[in-house]
Amino acid sequence: MKAEVISIGTELLLGEITDLNAAYLASQLPLLGLDLHFISTVGDNQQRLIEILNLACSRSDIVFTTGGLGPTEDDITREAIAELCREKISIDQSLVTQFRERFQTFNMDMPESNIKQASVIPSCQVVPNPRGTAPGWWVEHDGCVIISMPGPPSEMQTMWTDIIAPRIREKYCDSIIYTSTLKTFGLSEAELGEITRSYLQAKNPTVGIYAKPDGIHLRVGAKSTTLDEARRLVGKTVAELRSLCGEYIWGSDNDTLEGLIAGIFIGRKLSLATIEINTGGALANMLTNLPESKSFYRCGIVANLNEIDTDFGLNMNVLDQYGVVSTQTAREAASAIRRRYSTSIGMSVIGILEPDDSGAKPGTVLIGIDDGTRSSAFTRAFPGNRMQIKYRAAVSALFELRKIML
Amino acid sequence: MKAEVISIGTELLLGEITDLNAAYLASQLPLLGLDLHFISTVGDNQQRLIEILNLACSRSDIVFTTGGLGPTEDDITREAIAELCREKISIDQSLVTQFRERFQTFNMDMPESNIKQASVIPSCQVVPNPRGTAPGWWVEHDGCVIISMPGPPSEMQTMWTDIIAPRIREKYCDSIIYTSTLKTFGLSEAELGEITRSYLQAKNPTVGIYAKPDGIHLRVGAKSTTLDEARRLVGKTVAELRSLCGEYIWGSDNDTLEGLIAGIFIGRKLSLATIEINTGGALANMLTNLPESKSFYRCGIVANLNEIDTDFGLNMNVLDQYGVVSTQTAREAASAIRRRYSTSIGMSVIGILEPDDSGAKPGTVLIGIDDGTRSSAFTRAFPGNRMQIKYRAAVSALFELRKIML
Repeated sequence: MKAEVISIGTELLLGEITDLNAAYLASQLPLLGLDLHFISTVGDNQQRLIEILNLACSRSDIVFTTGGLGPTEDDITREAIAELCREKISIDQSLVTQFRERFQTFNMDMPESNIKQASVIPSCQVVPNPRGTAPGWWVEHDGCVIISMPGPPSEMQTMWTDIIAPRIREKYCDSIIYTSTLKTFGLSEAELGEITRSYLQAKNPTVGIYAKPDGIHLRVGAKSTTLDEARRLVGKTVAELRSLCGEYIWGSDNDTLEGLIAGIFIGRKLSLATIEINTGGALANMLTNLPESKSFYRCGIVANLNEIDTDFGLNMNVLDQYGVVSTQTAREAASAIRRRYSTSIGMSVIGILEPDDSGAKPGTVLIGIDDGTRSSAFTRAFPGNRMQIKYRAAVSALFELRKIML
Repeated sequence: MKAEVISIGTELLLGEITDLNAAYLASQLPLLGLDLHFISTVGDNQQRLIEILNLACSRSDIVFTTGGLGPTEDDITREAIAELCREKISIDQSLVTQFRERFQTFNMDMPESNIKQASVIPSCQVVPNPRGTAPGWWVEHDGCVIISMPGPPSEMQTMWTDIIAPRIREKYCDSIIYTSTLKTFGLSEAELGEITRSYLQAKNPTVGIYAKPDGIHLRVGAKSTTLDEARRLVGKTVAELRSLCGEYIWGSDNDTLEGLIAGIFIGRKLSLATIEINTGGALANMLTNLPESKSFYRCGIVANLNEIDTDFGLNMNVLDQYGVVSTQTAREAASAIRRRYSTSIGMSVIGILEPDDSGAKPGTVLIGIDDGTRSSAFTRAFPGNRMQIKYRAAVSALFELRKIML
């Protein structure tokens, strides 16, 4: 089926907000086997919206709109669809009652303007909004399905996943697309592309390759008439890619590096302390993105390459002999911070962000890990600006930590 | 003039990348007095692109396209415009020579596929690309101007600011729009809206209010026939808003809090150390986003509320008497970290991110600042999830630090 998305709102045309809804729907439609041919953005202008709806219905089988379902004068999606269908709008009193009850559960009176959101036309089915007051509309017009969803992304996405996507799957999809993502770190997009070349050219499952902040992702998607068969196809390719890419794969689907680290440390009742020299807390910041970090991450020191503090127990002889930017210092810093905070593991990151920091090449990152009996150090190099190198240093530190802990 | 934007690329329709170009152009067009009526996204499909170009030319005065100017088979923008204009494509040999010279300066041979980017039609003017190999096209067709720019945002934006925007201003704009942004922190959008209400309703200058991660921004824009007059109008309103919003305004236009702090500390040859209890390095991470941080930011400690390390000189009596989550502890932590690292200023941030951290309400943030002769403490409360509260705690710490230092 040919699909089309229309995003509605003058704020989008003024560049005041970025259209997250169209990108979200664009990523979801292939999972239902729908081909997205056009995305259009139009302001809160009824005549222009009717024009674009007319065009969309003439060239597509299913049209999704987001926005313009609010309670104010500006919200003209319902009016435009009513005019397109040449139907008269009326107020559905049972919806008004539902709205009032909903406001009452929050101990609030419903503003009268909300009544507008109970507008219906004879050919529309009302789609409940689990997250807000604006219901969606599902209209079949002239051989085309028009599905209107609210603009706030959280409301739109909940309505999509809970109600609209399952209903489309049931009514229109003779094929299912199932996908799974493998997350890698340490290879460039070109290198990974080389290794997986034959998979990237295959038709079913397809494999896509995407550069993300936390590494390169491989998305495997298979199409079939049954979910089981699609899953089986994906599972087979995923297993092959896993053996092909080996230790470069650190996770899949919703995994995050900080989440995997938390799982390992909490599961094994371990604790962690870190020292970051020149990476400005990027690692600490990433580690503490999850509340679970409280139960294993004890302390971090954020230091400056030029005036490194050695009072936490750093052996000055190592520094004097090898310099700050050395694997020896990375190991020693990891050991010292572990001893200082009596944790199971100590980790150090030393980052060279600009040419003037030291003799080392900008983008050089040293990582030290010490578990009390064994210490390891790694040297890595990353492209990018200051903020990107900081972030990549943190990702690579967690990536190496995970490998060592397994 | 009615304007329209067409974003070209199948990857946009698959949700693989977010369309930054359309949002960028949407924010730039009002500055030239152009009214953006539609944004459309279309894949790398020549027939569909021709359809949408035809429609765009029939309803708009000026059409901007981005993407599809690369060297591969997929790149079909030139071909589509040629077919729209019913003109024949030829290769401009002088462009090919320029390309070869450009590759030579990088000691590279030009891949033969790049010759495609030297394609022209009789009615197109070639627009130089200061950042890449794909030149733009400027075509006047049937009373409509079609301007095609490359897809990579850095190439597109440079071509826009250096060449296209000035040329449009010169050829088509009888009015100039000048804007300036004031950045505030500490007031909600509703509170700031209340204070500035009469300005928000004014027509020239207009004032827009935008919630951003670093606070609420007020954008003042004036339209006039001369830049001087537009600037004067903006300047007057900016001055009035400054006196109205007082100390809530921390900066304007391209200012960042970390940049202002760096300016103050470096200008006055001061140094800074921080301790973050429970905000996981968010403050250190923000402070170190600029390379200048190296010359004043000495050290940060990232601590965990549950197992706070007192060895850096924290007075245990204060902790015992008032608890960790207290302004007294915030002051004491700021003093202790200042003493420990012998810096001019010590700053502490204590954040309550979840209900279980302590008795305090989640979102509570305490800030302590000590300059050796005087210490201050602030209690703030922020909405949001864990990551938002961490970020807002860092922003508010820098905001208070800036105020104290001035």
